[in-house]
Order: sequence, then C-alpha cells, then structure tokens
Amino acid sequence: MNCLIRNTTVLTMNEQNEILNDADVLVKDGIIAKVGRNIAYTGNAEVIDGQGKLLMPGLINCHCHVPMTVLRSYADDMELQTWLFNHIFPVEARLTEDDVYWGSMLGIMEMLATGTTCFADMYYFLDGIASAVERSGIRAQLSRGQTCNDPGPDFSENQAMKESIDFVKKWNGAAGGRITAAMAPHAIYTCSAAYIKAIAENAEKLGVPIHVHLDETLTEHQDCLKAHGKTPAAYLCELGLFDLKTIAAHCVWITDDDMDLLKEKDVSFIHCPASNLKLASGIAPVPAAVSKGLNVCIGTDGASSNNNLNMWEEMYLASIIHKGSSRDPRLITAYDALRMATVNGAKALGMSGIGSVKEGNKADLIMIDMEKPHLKPLHNICSALVYSAQGSDVCMTMVDGRILYQDGEFRTIDKEEVYFNIERVRRRLFG
Amino acid sequence: MNCLIRNTTVLTMNEQNEILNDADVLVKDGIIAKVGRNIAYTGNAEVIDGQGKLLMPGLINCHCHVPMTVLRSYADDMELQTWLFNHIFPVEARLTEDDVYWGSMLGIMEMLATGTTCFADMYYFLDGIASAVERSGIRAQLSRGQTCNDPGPDFSENQAMKESIDFVKKWNGAAGGRITAAMAPHAIYTCSAAYIKAIAENAEKLGVPIHVHLDETLTEHQDCLKAHGKTPAAYLCELGLFDLKTIAAHCVWITDDDMDLLKEKDVSFIHCPASNLKLASGIAPVPAAVSKGLNVCIGTDGASSNNNLNMWEEMYLASIIHKGSSRDPRLITAYDALRMATVNGAKALGMSGIGSVKEGNKADLIMIDMEKPHLKPLHNICSALVYSAQGSDVCMTMVDGRILYQDGEFRTIDKEEVYFNIERVRRRLFG
Repeated sequence: MNCLIRNTTVLTMNEQNEILNDADVLVKDGIIAKVGRNIAYTGNAEVIDGQGKLLMPGLINCHCHVPMTVLRSYADDMELQTWLFNHIFPVEARLTEDDVYWGSMLGIMEMLATGTTCFADMYYFLDGIASAVERSGIRAQLSRGQTCNDPGPDFSENQAMKESIDFVKKWNGAAGGRITAAMAPHAIYTCSAAYIKAIAENAEKLGVPIHVHLDETLTEHQDCLKAHGKTPAAYLCELGLFDLKTIAAHCVWITDDDMDLLKEKDVSFIHCPASNLKLASGIAPVPAAVSKGLNVCIGTDGASSNNNLNMWEEMYLASIIHKGSSRDPRLITAYDALRMATVNGAKALGMSGIGSVKEGNKADLIMIDMEKPHLKPLHNICSALVYSAQGSDVCMTMVDGRILYQDGEFRTIDKEEVYFNIERVRRRLFG
Repeated sequence: MNCLIRNTTVLTMNEQNEILNDADVLVKDGIIAKVGRNIAYTGNAEVIDGQGKLLMPGLINCHCHVPMTVLRSYADDMELQTWLFNHIFPVEARLTEDDVYWGSMLGIMEMLATGTTCFADMYYFLDGIASAVERSGIRAQLSRGQTCNDPGPDFSENQAMKESIDFVKKWNGAAGGRITAAMAPHAIYTCSAAYIKAIAENAEKLGVPIHVHLDETLTEHQDCLKAHGKTPAAYLCELGLFDLKTIAAHCVWITDDDMDLLKEKDVSFIHCPASNLKLASGIAPVPAAVSKGLNVCIGTDGASSNNNLNMWEEMYLASIIHKGSSRDPRLITAYDALRMATVNGAKALGMSGIGSVKEGNKADLIMIDMEKPHLKPLHNICSALVYSAQGSDVCMTMVDGRILYQDGEFRTIDKEEVYFNIERVRRRLFG
C-alpha cells in the first residue's frame, strides 16, 4: 500500500537541517518517493491529512533488551548486585522462548506507540525476538548476548557461540532486510579475553557488526584497571574488537583517551541516560564525546532498569541532565538530542537508508500530533519535541512504508492477545 | 453532581500506605464520602467503571509560573543571564492581563490533562490567573511575585505591595475555597531586606503564607555570602520570613545547616528537578533533605524553563537523578516521589483536606488508565506509576468532586477557544 501525507510540517533531519512547511510526502513501495508541495499523484494510496501534525524520521533505539519488559517494575530501588543476582538473574534463568516472544511483542508495542521504528537488541532466545520483529513489522538489529569466562582457546562447542552463529546465518537480512544480525560479547567482566577474540573472529567471518556493553559502572572500570592495567575501552581495542563496526552501550566511565580511541576506531557511543541514573551507574561524559565528534546515539536499555522503552524520555534526559550536572545550559541542544535519536542511530547501526526524511530513503516515518496544550505556542519545533512532547504525542508510526500504529491502534499486533499472554507469562514466572 | 467509581484500584497515599483492590469510591458534594467494597448507593450519581484503572489523589504542583506557557520553547539552550535579560524579561514587560489569562488557561489545561489538581503559583496580573483558576475549576494557591530593591523602610506606595494586598483581600478563599492567596518576596537578589520584612509583616497581618525562591543558583548563594556573611536561608530566617508558613522553591545550593534551619522552621523544600537541570542551576540535595525529615514537595517551575507542567516527568526525575548523581540506587524510592507529589504538597500548602484518598477529604482525585503496554506487567504499582507512566495515562481529573477532564476532553474549558487565543497572544507578543 502506498501512502500520501498531505500538508504537513516535515522535520527532515537532513544535512541542511531543513524543516518544511505545508509539505506533501509520497511513500511508494516502502520508499520515500517524493517530498514537496502539492504532489500530483493519481495512483492508489492511503491519504493522510497532515495538518496540525509533524512528520519526522522514526526514532532509533540503539540499546535494548526488549524481552525484559516481563521484568518491568519487578525489582526497583535496590543495590545493583542485589537487583541483578537476587532478582533479575533467577527469573531470567526460568525464561523460555515463549516468554521472550511475548515480552518482545509487548516491548515492540510500546516502541511503536512512542515512535521508535528501529531498535538494536542484545538478549537470548533470539528466535523469539526475531519472530516478534518479523510479525510486528518493526526494524531491528539483533544479537545473542554471549557470556563465557572459560580461558579458551577453543569455543567450538560453546552453546552461546553456536546459537549466535546460527542466528546470524538464519536471520541476517530476513524479513525483507528489516532484521539484521550482530554479535555481542556481553561485557568484559562476563567474557574471557579469548572468548571476546573468538566472537570477533566469527563476526568478521560472517560480516556482522558488534554490540557490547562498555564501562557501565565504576566497578567494571576499576576492576579492569586492576586486572589488565588499562581501561575497558583500551582492553577491548587491544583484543581487536574495535576493528569491527561496533556500538558500545553506556560508556559512563570512559576517559578522555578512551574517547579519542572510540573516535579513531569509529565506535558509536550509545548513551542510556535513564538506565544509568536509575541503576546509579553515573552520568556519562556525553558533552565531551559530542565535542570530540564521536557518533553519540541513544538507547533505552531494558525495561527493568528504566522502566520504559520511550525514546522521548531519553531525548529529554540526554538534553537536560548534562546541562544540570555540568552547569552549562548550552550543552546538548534539542537538535543535538534529535540527531542522536535519528541520524546518529542510523549511522551507528550501519543503516544508510533511514534516520532522515529524504527521497530514496526507506519510509521509516512517524507523525506527531502537535494539537496538544503542552506543545503550544510553537515557537521552536525542536524545543517543543525534546522539552515538551511525550511519547504519547506520536499518532502514526510507519516502517518500510507500512503503517504499524495509528491513533492508538496497532495494525499488525493484537493488543488483547499480547496482554493476555503477558499475564500468563507473569503468572508462570512469578506465581 | 455526585460520582461513584466502581471496582477500581485505589492508591490511597494514607498513613498506612494502603493500596485497595476492587474498591468503590463515592463522592458526594465534593467530598470523598465513602471508600470500600460494593458500596450501596441509590442516589443520583455519575457512575465510572474503574476496572483496569487506578484511582489516586490528584498531584500537587508546588511551584509554577503558569502564564509563562506563552514563552514555552521561545528561548532554550542558552546562558541563564542571556535567557533572562535578553529574552524572558523583554517579553514579560509587554505582557497584559489578557495574555496572562490565556496563558494560565493553557497551563491549566496541561495540568488537568496530566493529573494535577492543585498548583502554587507566583507571577503578576494575578486577576488573570485567578479568573482562569475560577473558571477552569482547578485548585490553586496564588501569589503576586514582588520585586523591589528600594532600601525602605516605607513601602506604602509600592505598587506590587498594593496589588499583593488587594489580591489577598479580593481572592483569598474565593471560588468556594479553591483559591487561596500567599505573599511572595520573589528572591533575595530582587528584594531589599526592608522590603522582605514589610512583605512578611503584611502577610502576618493578612494571615497568609509565603512563597519564595531560595538558593536557586550558585551565583545567588555566593553573592549572599559576600553581601551578608550568611547563606540565603540564614539571611531570610534572620529577616523573620520563616516565622511565617513558607514554601521555598529550588533549594539547590542549601547547606546542611540550612536544612536543619528549614526543618526547625517547618519550611517546605520545593524540588524543581527539570528546571534546575535545564537551566543548569544544579542538582538539589534532596536525599539529605529527605533523610533529615524535611517536607520535600515538587514543582514544575514555569513552562519556559522545563518546558512543560507535567508532574509525572518531575516525579520520574526526582526519583532517578539523585540515584544517578549520588550513585546509590536506593535513594528516593518510587513511593517517596509519589509522597512528594501528593501528601507532602498538601502539607506544604497548608491544605489538610487533600493529598490522600480518605473519607472526609476533598475529592481531588485522578484516574490512571493502566491498560497500556508500558504499564504491563504490573509487578509494583508505585514503580509503574513513577518509572513507567506518562502524563497522558491520566484519564480522569476531578477537583472538589467535579470532573474537569476525562478521556481527552475538558468539561470546563473550550480547548479551541484557548488555542485560538494563545495563537492571537503569540502573534501580538512576537509579531
């Protein structure tokens, strides 16, 4: 189905930072075919009246563990170790692929309803996640989070490695290219050096990028200095990981030298402000990273440490917390935050055809209903979006030219079926 | 009109921290007449099906400048002095009472739609604000922000003082008690010592409380130390201001001794996390204030420094930023944040009949639609509300037993009329 959006405001996020007024956007065969005024089109198309609305690229959530929605609000306000070892890990040990499927569907519903059109995920039971992505119509880059402290060198019988390789072979490029695969050494404290190297070798062979947690907590940072005499970033670089295209989540404790290294190796810095605050990991040095020219993008992390998958909240936090903690209100402007959540995310995931509204790009688009009290008067569109909008202001979400969500309704997901199954999963897991 | 809410979950915020399941709530003549199961009531009442919803006390926004909605998104991402002197003040100098009325109506719409039932405001053209409060049906404590650096001692001809006194006489207790008045020395850097003393004397005579900005920026703090040899809190205390019932907004730079002083004088600490971050004022010592037993409540500040009047965002920030900046995830639990926004707010404003759901209290109530993807599964209600909910999850807002907002519709406000007039105001002010 083609789609013609009439008379709308377009925040393009293109290289010229253009905002178009009274523009039409024609979507044909999943592609943004034309952007302009009074487009003449006589073919078959769903027509959307864009008056009072704003069209922009879909948001890109670069770090998530989507099935963890099943653990949302289960354990909060406690020490990281207590949270992880006494609450999260014991439940995760009981998860099934079915749980992961329904948890993913729930998380995808939340993301679509708040304008996220693409997410990067790291978890396990990947077939469950990939099936949910395939069915729902969202775009995703998925990776099997691998952990193994075996000193190696042989990991040919390693279960997670096998699953990871199988996943890449089965799903990379699936669903018309909507699903891509990455490989994911979970973190330096859950993987031996040989294991990380083996993952990097396999990823290189398979031609897929890397998704890794990096320098999330001070403990990780200090333990690494003690054990290896270098920072986590320097350590991973030495293991050759950064020779592959890499996205590094958190980067809370990275040093100035680390940032230069990430810049040199073109590693993307995934800022996860809500999770870092809520788990008390700290405040990542985002202004410094931006001023050094790193590709900073945004992730929600999982819904058990946030507790939502709402990129509007992340953009707001990414913009205001650094102003406050550095006491400089000029840091991370509204436009900076929008770039992180769109074009920078696309770059991080190596997806050149998304992240901005321009002819020839994939039609991963969202619309915002601007007729809300909190978005008036409209002096500045970028400010209104980052500092005033809520996720619920999103009124349409489209991926590959297909409308997946509109005005509270999901076109590819049976909401009641998901709620029913999530309750079933909750009862099974928690009694 | 009476109202009977059937089969709902009630977050009471009462002294026993009770959460009731499958409860009914009967509202009669503006009062919570009965809370319990299967209430038998045969009188005339609007019946609301509460299944899948949660009923709780309305939120109390303790620091606002509501007409500043007209300046929303007008000037962002700049130095405080540039923002204030080059952008905000010049526009404020052109404001009229008509602008203030419509700006207030717009802000009240936003607050009602996000579950705020009461706010404390400090601004000028108070008749405009009070008229909007009267017409809309919301509850408010209003004060004329007074500034005057005249060394005194006589302020009998001072325009702001006259307006302030006239306002108290005209409006205190108006609209069936929904409107109360306070007096407001703006801040130590905008008022002479004699002026602050004169305001305190008048407030005492009139029997109204005090609303003041306190220690918002490091500049204010350091300048006060230099000029008076004491902190802003100690200085105001010495001037006798704290002998009156006082709410103090911001308190970003208050010291340990200041907190002991505020505790001793029963001054409420109004935390404004979004504004403090966005204007780069800093991060207030909220965990210390809470552990010392101060009455900490929450304010949004004006929409030009936030840029919204959404208490859900403030509760979220109040809970996560201190965990992150102090690196202790146990600080400011979800329940702490809910208390700040309800019972503590009521206490701060001296309104004993609001802030919790119990029989005999005023029916200032809100309902949350829990049938949303981001609120499932529901392991913990308080966590879900603070860490996952959005303002838009509010589906009903009631003040004094009167439903003012329900399912996107305002019952006392003509939305289109407000939007039309806000656009008119914007054009007049900004051309």
